Amino acid sequence: MGHMLMRRAVADDIPAIVELLADDGLGRGRESVADLTPYRRAFEVVDLDPAQLLAVAEIDGVIVGTLQLTVIPGLSQRGRTRGLVEAVRIASARRGQGLGGELMRWVIAEARERGCSLVQLTSNATRGDAHRFYERLGFTPSHVGFKLEI
Amino acid sequence: MGHMLMRRAVADDIPAIVELLADDGLGRGRESVADLTPYRRAFEVVDLDPAQLLAVAEIDGVIVGTLQLTVIPGLSQRGRTRGLVEAVRIASARRGQGLGGELMRWVIAEARERGCSLVQLTSNATRGDAHRFYERLGFTPSHVGFKLEI
Repeated sequence: MGHMLMRRAVADDIPAIVELLADDGLGRGRESVADLTPYRRAFEVVDLDPAQLLAVAEIDGVIVGTLQLTVIPGLSQRGRTRGLVEAVRIASARRGQGLGGELMRWVIAEARERGCSLVQLTSNATRGDAHRFYERLGFTPSHVGFKLEI
Repeated sequence: MGHMLMRRAVADDIPAIVELLADDGLGRGRESVADLTPYRRAFEVVDLDPAQLLAVAEIDGVIVGTLQLTVIPGLSQRGRTRGLVEAVRIASARRGQGLGGELMRWVIAEARERGCSLVQLTSNATRGDAHRFYERLGFTPSHVGFKLEI
């Protein structure tokens, strides 16, 4: 197995990213791989926003992972900048090989470079394996994550 | 008691916002009301970022609440835009009067106007009262919120 390369996503990566988003117990019903139009539109907005880093991980030219970092400035905690990580996915066939940890360590370094002193994320309460994964990386499950469809 | 007015924060509001951030069990040890320099610096960054809405609530010219909305575009869930709410505070002397609910309903409407179809936030696991408050507003505590100091 070749080296895993992490990089900023480009428009050509959209089909692979959508496959990864759908390749997931919770994601399956929420994505529409057949029609990429809404994803292309969203990609343009993400790509133009300097606070966003949509990234992919590839091995031997094949995309095996993705995540999105948002840099959020704020006044609280003496003007602390935080990094929010969303939409972390590793291809199901590649799980359990340590790639997720590598991807997370990479994004933590990217967040630090962008001035963040805190990284935060939420994980669905049903994703027990993911929770153990984030705790092994040093994350503290100190908060309850609330969502509201509007 | 006069009508509560919600509006975008301006630089003159910084001292009052910092007072609110510090006027809180968890916030007390994390803020430095004596030196506003880091807050002024952070305010400039927040104010220039079109994805950020730092807001204050005032009654009869007195600031009684604050929160921050971040608009986050993304590919997942068919290119859904989400609104993240952070740093929600109501002055301790004004709690229990329904102002928090009014402030949250206002920011939900602002998020909708900015294209969000989901609002999310995390609340420290020790803030039981806050959790009941968010649930009354319709939020679902479906996620675990992880934080990592970096």
